Amino acid sequence: MFEFKVIAQCPVTGARAGELITPHGIIHTPVFMPVGTLASVKAIQPRELEEINAQIILGNTYHLYLRPGSEVIANSGGLHSFMNWNRPILTDSGGFQVFSLAKLQKITDEGVLCRSHIDGSQLTMSPEWSMRMQRVLGSDIAMCFDQCCEFPATHEKAEEAVRRTTLWAERSLKCFNSENDSERQTLFGIVQGSVYDDLRLRSAEEITAMGFKGYAIGGLSVGESHEAMYHSLDVLNGVMPEDKPRYLMGVGYPLNIIEGIARGIDMFDCVMPTRNGRNATVFVSTGRLNMRGKSHANELIPLDSDCDCYTCRNFTRSYLRHLAVCGEILGSELFSLHNLRFTIRIAELARQAIIAGNFPKFMEDFKEKFNDDNSISS
Amino acid sequence: MFEFKVIAQCPVTGARAGELITPHGIIHTPVFMPVGTLASVKAIQPRELEEINAQIILGNTYHLYLRPGSEVIANSGGLHSFMNWNRPILTDSGGFQVFSLAKLQKITDEGVLCRSHIDGSQLTMSPEWSMRMQRVLGSDIAMCFDQCCEFPATHEKAEEAVRRTTLWAERSLKCFNSENDSERQTLFGIVQGSVYDDLRLRSAEEITAMGFKGYAIGGLSVGESHEAMYHSLDVLNGVMPEDKPRYLMGVGYPLNIIEGIARGIDMFDCVMPTRNGRNATVFVSTGRLNMRGKSHANELIPLDSDCDCYTCRNFTRSYLRHLAVCGEILGSELFSLHNLRFTIRIAELARQAIIAGNFPKFMEDFKEKFNDDNSISS
Repeated sequence: MFEFKVIAQCPVTGARAGELITPHGIIHTPVFMPVGTLASVKAIQPRELEEINAQIILGNTYHLYLRPGSEVIANSGGLHSFMNWNRPILTDSGGFQVFSLAKLQKITDEGVLCRSHIDGSQLTMSPEWSMRMQRVLGSDIAMCFDQCCEFPATHEKAEEAVRRTTLWAERSLKCFNSENDSERQTLFGIVQGSVYDDLRLRSAEEITAMGFKGYAIGGLSVGESHEAMYHSLDVLNGVMPEDKPRYLMGVGYPLNIIEGIARGIDMFDCVMPTRNGRNATVFVSTGRLNMRGKSHANELIPLDSDCDCYTCRNFTRSYLRHLAVCGEILGSELFSLHNLRFTIRIAELARQAIIAGNFPKFMEDFKEKFNDDNSISS
Repeated sequence: MFEFKVIAQCPVTGARAGELITPHGIIHTPVFMPVGTLASVKAIQPRELEEINAQIILGNTYHLYLRPGSEVIANSGGLHSFMNWNRPILTDSGGFQVFSLAKLQKITDEGVLCRSHIDGSQLTMSPEWSMRMQRVLGSDIAMCFDQCCEFPATHEKAEEAVRRTTLWAERSLKCFNSENDSERQTLFGIVQGSVYDDLRLRSAEEITAMGFKGYAIGGLSVGESHEAMYHSLDVLNGVMPEDKPRYLMGVGYPLNIIEGIARGIDMFDCVMPTRNGRNATVFVSTGRLNMRGKSHANELIPLDSDCDCYTCRNFTRSYLRHLAVCGEILGSELFSLHNLRFTIRIAELARQAIIAGNFPKFMEDFKEKFNDDNSISS
C-alpha cells in the first residue's frame, strides 16, 4: 500500500508519469486534486467529480475540526462515507490555516494557540492534535503539521519555521506511527524554507531523512513571483527522492502546473478553479475569460471548444454570460465544473505527453496558446 | 398539436389523468412544473431536470425581458436553445410580476407602466408586448396578459381586474392569432376573480367563451386561506371545460397540489421547492424539515427513504445538515433537487392512483402521513 512507481519520465525536463497505490484506488500522476474544504468541493457533486475524472480530493483538517467537528465525522465512519466520496482523499494538517485564516495568538515549539475564524473560540493545534484529527477523518494521505511562514519573510524567520517544521514532522511521525493505521493511511512530510535556497535544501534534507511515503513542498504560491517559485522547484528537483511522489501545495494556476510538472512535481491542489468559477472567471485553452463581459453576450460558442466537460458540451457563452450577470447558482456550478475539468485535464494531457515522449512539445504548445497576463499567482 | 385528452378520471373526486400534446413532447398530467425564472431552474442543471422527470418548466417573461433581453434570446433562436432545454416550456405573461415585483406606476385599460425591480428603468407592458415577447421566447404554451389583484381586495377592485383581464385576453388572443405561429405555440386564458364566487364564475364564463387551448386559474395562492382556495376551485370545477387542461398558477405546497388534483386541476407551478431548498427547508413524506436543525447532526438516514432522488440515494441527513449550517452551495443544489423531485413525484403518484382507480385512498394516505403545521400557503 502507498507504493509509488514512476512509469515514464521526460528525458529533457525530468517530468514524471507515475502511479500511487492507495486504499481507495490508484492515482495516476501528474494529478490535480480539487479542494473540498468543508467536505464539499464547492458547488460540485461527487458524481460530477467522478465524471471529470477527479482521482483524489482534499479535505481541510482545520475547517472540518470546527465544522462539523470530529464527533459528527466519526459518527459517519470518516470523511469518505460522510461526504459519499469513495476515491482517495488527502487531508492537510491545519498548519496552513494558522497562517492564512485563523487569528494566531501564540506559536511555540509546543504548538499553536489561535482563535477560530468562525466564532472566535480558542483552539490549540499541535502535531498530535493534527494526527488524531486526520485519523478521525480517515484520509488516505495525511500531512505533517508544519509551519508555513508568510511572504516575504526574513531569512531568520524562515529558518525558524524550517527548524520548527522539522521538529513537528518528527512528532507528527511518532504520533502517527503509534496511533494511526498505516495500512489505511499514510503520512507525507512537508518541506519549507520560503525562497531561500539554503533553507529549502536544509529542510529537504531533514524531512526526507525521516523516510515518509511522499513529500510536499509547502510555503510556495504565497505571493512570491512565478520565477521565484520555479527557482525553488529547480533547487529541490535535484535533492528530492526520485522514488517518492512530490506534491506542490496550493498550486493550480495552469501555467504553474505545467512548469511544476516540468520540474518533477507529481501532485497539485488549489481552490483556484472553484473560487474563480464562483466569480465567473474561467480558464480556457487560450487563456482567461471574465464571463460577465459584454463581449460574450451573443457568442454562440462554448467556453472552450477543446473541452469535454458538461458545460462546454451543452451551453453557449451567451447563456453562461447571462447566468454570470444574474448571479445564478447554476453559473457557479457550470463555471466551477469547467475550471476543474480544465485543470484536471492539463495534468492528464501532460501525463499522456510524458508517456508518449513528447512532453516538451506539449508544454511549448500549451504555453504558446495560453495567453494570459499572468498577473495572478495561484 | 396542443390537443388534450383525459385518459382516466376518479369517479369520486373528479381528479383527472391526461395527456397534452406539445411540439416538444407529450405532457402527462397531473404535472408539477418547476420554475426557471431567469432561464434557469435555480441551482439545477437541465440534465438533472430530466433525471427527476420534469416534463415541462416555466420561464418568466418579465424577468427575461429585463435580463438577458429579447435580442440575446432571439440570437439563440429562442428560450429552448438558449438554455439547452428540449422539453416543453410554458411562459407566463409578465402580468403577475406587475403585482408582485415591479414598481407599478400606472395601470389603465391600455396597459401597465412600471419600473424595473433591477435598475428602476421604465417599462410599458401590454397584451401586445407580452405576446410579442413570448413569441421571441418561443415557449410551447404562452399565457394571456392578465391583471392579478392583491389579497385581500374589495369586490369592486376584484371586479375591475376581472373586466380588464377579459379585455386583455381578447387583445392577447387577437395579437397572438395574427402574429404567433399556432403550430409551435399555443395560448392559455387566465381566470381571475379573487375569492368572490360571482366574479370567478363571470371570469370563467368570459374567458372560456374565447376558446383557448387551456385555462389557468390565477389570483389564488396570494395570501388567502387554504379553505378559501379550495372553495374557489370547487366553484370553478363545475364550469371549466372538461376537455381542456386546467392550470392552477403559483401552487406548489404538497397538500395544495393534492387538493387541487382532487378538484380537477391538471397543472401546477411554484418556486416553493427551489426557494425552500436554498433555505435548507425540505419536504418529505412525513412533512417539513428544517435541515439546519441540530437534531439532524448525527442522523445517518436519508431525507426521505421513500424518495428516489440523487440526494436521498446518496447522502445522510448528518452530511446534509452540515452543508446547510455551512451555507455550502452543494446544499442548495441537493435540497432543491430533492424538493423538486418530491413535488414532481406527488403529481406522478397521483396520476398513477387516478389511472389505477384508487386516488381517494392515495390522497387519504398522503394527508395522514404528511404532518405539517400547514401555516405556509404556497
